[in-house]
Amino acid sequence: MDKSHVIQMNGVSVRGVLDPAKLKSRRQRSWGVRASEMSKNTLNPIRAIVDGMKLTPNPDKPMISLSIGDPTVFGNMPTDDKVLQAMKEAIDSQKYNGYAPSVGYQKSREAVANFYSRPGAPLEAKDVILTSGCSQAIELCINVLCNPGDNILVPCPGFSLYKTLAVSLGVQVKLYNLLPEKSWEVDLQHLESLIDSRTACLIVTNPSNPCGSVYSKEHLQNIISGAVSLRPSGAFTVTTDSVFPDCSFHPMAPLSSDVPILSCGGLAKRWLVPGWRMGWILIHDRNNVFGSEIREGLVKLSQRILGACTIVQGALESIFNNTPHEFYQSTVSFIKANSEICYSALSTVPGLTPVMPSGAMYLMVGIDMDNFPEFQNDVDFTERLVTEQSVFCLPATAFEYPDFFRVVVTVPEDMMMEACARIREFCARHYRPCSTDSNEIDQ
Amino acid sequence: MDKSHVIQMNGVSVRGVLDPAKLKSRRQRSWGVRASEMSKNTLNPIRAIVDGMKLTPNPDKPMISLSIGDPTVFGNMPTDDKVLQAMKEAIDSQKYNGYAPSVGYQKSREAVANFYSRPGAPLEAKDVILTSGCSQAIELCINVLCNPGDNILVPCPGFSLYKTLAVSLGVQVKLYNLLPEKSWEVDLQHLESLIDSRTACLIVTNPSNPCGSVYSKEHLQNIISGAVSLRPSGAFTVTTDSVFPDCSFHPMAPLSSDVPILSCGGLAKRWLVPGWRMGWILIHDRNNVFGSEIREGLVKLSQRILGACTIVQGALESIFNNTPHEFYQSTVSFIKANSEICYSALSTVPGLTPVMPSGAMYLMVGIDMDNFPEFQNDVDFTERLVTEQSVFCLPATAFEYPDFFRVVVTVPEDMMMEACARIREFCARHYRPCSTDSNEIDQ
Ligand SMILES: Cc1ncc(COP(=O)(O)O)c(C=O)c1O
Ligand SMILES: Cc1ncc(COP(=O)(O)O)c(C=O)c1O
Repeated sequence: MDKSHVIQMNGVSVRGVLDPAKLKSRRQRSWGVRASEMSKNTLNPIRAIVDGMKLTPNPDKPMISLSIGDPTVFGNMPTDDKVLQAMKEAIDSQKYNGYAPSVGYQKSREAVANFYSRPGAPLEAKDVILTSGCSQAIELCINVLCNPGDNILVPCPGFSLYKTLAVSLGVQVKLYNLLPEKSWEVDLQHLESLIDSRTACLIVTNPSNPCGSVYSKEHLQNIISGAVSLRPSGAFTVTTDSVFPDCSFHPMAPLSSDVPILSCGGLAKRWLVPGWRMGWILIHDRNNVFGSEIREGLVKLSQRILGACTIVQGALESIFNNTPHEFYQSTVSFIKANSEICYSALSTVPGLTPVMPSGAMYLMVGIDMDNFPEFQNDVDFTERLVTEQSVFCLPATAFEYPDFFRVVVTVPEDMMMEACARIREFCARHYRPCSTDSNEIDQ
Repeated sequence: MDKSHVIQMNGVSVRGVLDPAKLKSRRQRSWGVRASEMSKNTLNPIRAIVDGMKLTPNPDKPMISLSIGDPTVFGNMPTDDKVLQAMKEAIDSQKYNGYAPSVGYQKSREAVANFYSRPGAPLEAKDVILTSGCSQAIELCINVLCNPGDNILVPCPGFSLYKTLAVSLGVQVKLYNLLPEKSWEVDLQHLESLIDSRTACLIVTNPSNPCGSVYSKEHLQNIISGAVSLRPSGAFTVTTDSVFPDCSFHPMAPLSSDVPILSCGGLAKRWLVPGWRMGWILIHDRNNVFGSEIREGLVKLSQRILGACTIVQGALESIFNNTPHEFYQSTVSFIKANSEICYSALSTVPGLTPVMPSGAMYLMVGIDMDNFPEFQNDVDFTERLVTEQSVFCLPATAFEYPDFFRVVVTVPEDMMMEACARIREFCARHYRPCSTDSNEIDQ
């Protein structure tokens, strides 16, 4: 097998007759390796938008980034010492260096089952699959429920990963509306209108990224009734596990007697260690609608790359048992206090309409674009906010929801206040009152 | 949206007219959730074979398992203290709790690049993508290079994950033969005969699982010449990074001037921590055949579930810098000594043909099935070995290579000897000399 043979095989000997431009493309084709369709179809809207923005902060003002959904970046929200100690004990034990079963250690699955069991929605170890972050939990759920040509129902605005994963598989995404005027409740009629015979699952994000909303028991019950019409398919909800203390979070599973639910979660946000990549799927299927097929499918899929780091798995039981209640409370009190600072500061800014969150760590702010005629859209608006005020908020176009931006409220309090003051100044400079008669603008 | 409406929507009202059997299947169809084709096509041959075996050890003999490719299970091969210390320092620093870039921290990528740079095959941080174990590295490589309908060239016998991943994507697997009589070198003619216009990549496993072979420089050069005919596609090699000290391991990349190579590796075997799920892809493409497309594709794919645990990433630089040379040496000396024990014990057993390995931690043993007429195949043979002698070796049918079994040589020395003695006893009991004249068997 020599090279000249190969070159002939590839028809390179005809190159001489081509003009240089064609030669180049021919050469690239015969030597260049193309990326797969799947990788090309793996689209990350946040990256696509942020990478396209000119983010040049004002050199006179230190940058304040309210864009990254990572509570650890400012150092003001460390995880609890008990969490770190649990990890070090797992390391010292030397018991967690080998391969775990692909769905996780039995004891670690048991620990998750115990922590998340609720009256009416009990869990055992067999109902838990450990994954590499909540992201892999979502990937496994979509992979096990959907065939190419199926569709899934995804909240709008919503976390972009659902679409990224679905589209790369040839699964269609149907966005159902959330209603900002109703604290981001689901537009149930809209949801219902989207369901068809190829609908494979309904994704509910509660608490919500990017909205920070937390649904009432009644609203969740209404969503479940809607999900019943998903027969013969399933439903799964994605939970991100961090709610303000005075607002009662209702997991969906105890409310559902017959709709099976795959609940995805992880250590990331509640324990403030998103980098550790520890996630899980909780399988709620009390009426055995999934049968063995979905469970077996999840097990098989978990064998592709195996799951989470065994050290973190080994630490899980101790993390659940020993993290003090005050840690959770102080986290959510802090986020709540910051949300209130942000909400009250921005709700008096003409042209902005913040929506008060009740969970997670985000706050969405509507932009009355008519009042900001200089800017074409939320991307333009937030780009200029960086240029002039060195404050970066994610334009909600990244969540398929134009004319809003998302504020991450985990930054230190003084930064939160400073950022709001700068946003106020920015809006004051660019705000133009709307007139009923468009001619008035000329006056 | 009430339930009765939904039930009508799904045509359940017609149920009454069906007979009970049909009713049942109809009901299952209207309420049962089916797993996706992809999950059904995610096949793990090792599980399929092992789960189908009756593994009932002899109660009079303690079980010795030589089947699991996990060097940590017997406790005789702990990782180095420096490796554990690096992890604890990463935890204490509190710098590695947040999200890392999806391809890994820049500093950690740099550390991998430095560790694996070779004269003639330099690496920079940009050439390294950190992944959740070598398994995810392999998944990303197959995902970025292959479209459904393409084919990949995979060694036979070989590690089963390649096929598992490829088949679930609709990518065809073509097995090229390794030659046991040539220490498992590639049958280059056979390899060449398999290449066609849809061949997306060639996978080379060196050192090999399950064979333990390590290729000479000359042989690798011959393989690369073969890979040239893969134009316009690529090639990638998978390396598992553990070689006996007296045998020089040659990475493929410095030998290849024009064939681009994606080299997959990880901490698992060399640092004896497979559970930590730390892997990487090294992109060797000095002639820019991949262009930007493959690199960008890998970055995009890495954003699906993000990569490796940040604590392990944070520890990487210190692991590379501080693991003492003696640790690597004592690991490989131990494996080599055990291989020699196993090889010399089994090479005098009539009916068995062990092949001496020179790397990794495995040894393959041929079974002259004609001499064991009681057994149908290697699965049968190894099953009975458990029943009678409580020794479990993986039948090589799991690697698409019948009539061999694989021995994992990381067990404690006394177990290795005891296991070989029992295998000898087992073979002695069941061996039947082959006669040139089949009638002689009746005598
Ligand atoms: C709704 C939602 N799901 C999943 C994730 C991903 O979680 P992980 O980092 O554990 O993969 C996030 C992270 O922001 C999220 O907001
Ligand atoms: C050839 C080969 N590649 C990849 C792997 C998987 O490595 P990891 O555990 O890092 O995913 C193994 C594990 O045995 C292997 O033998």
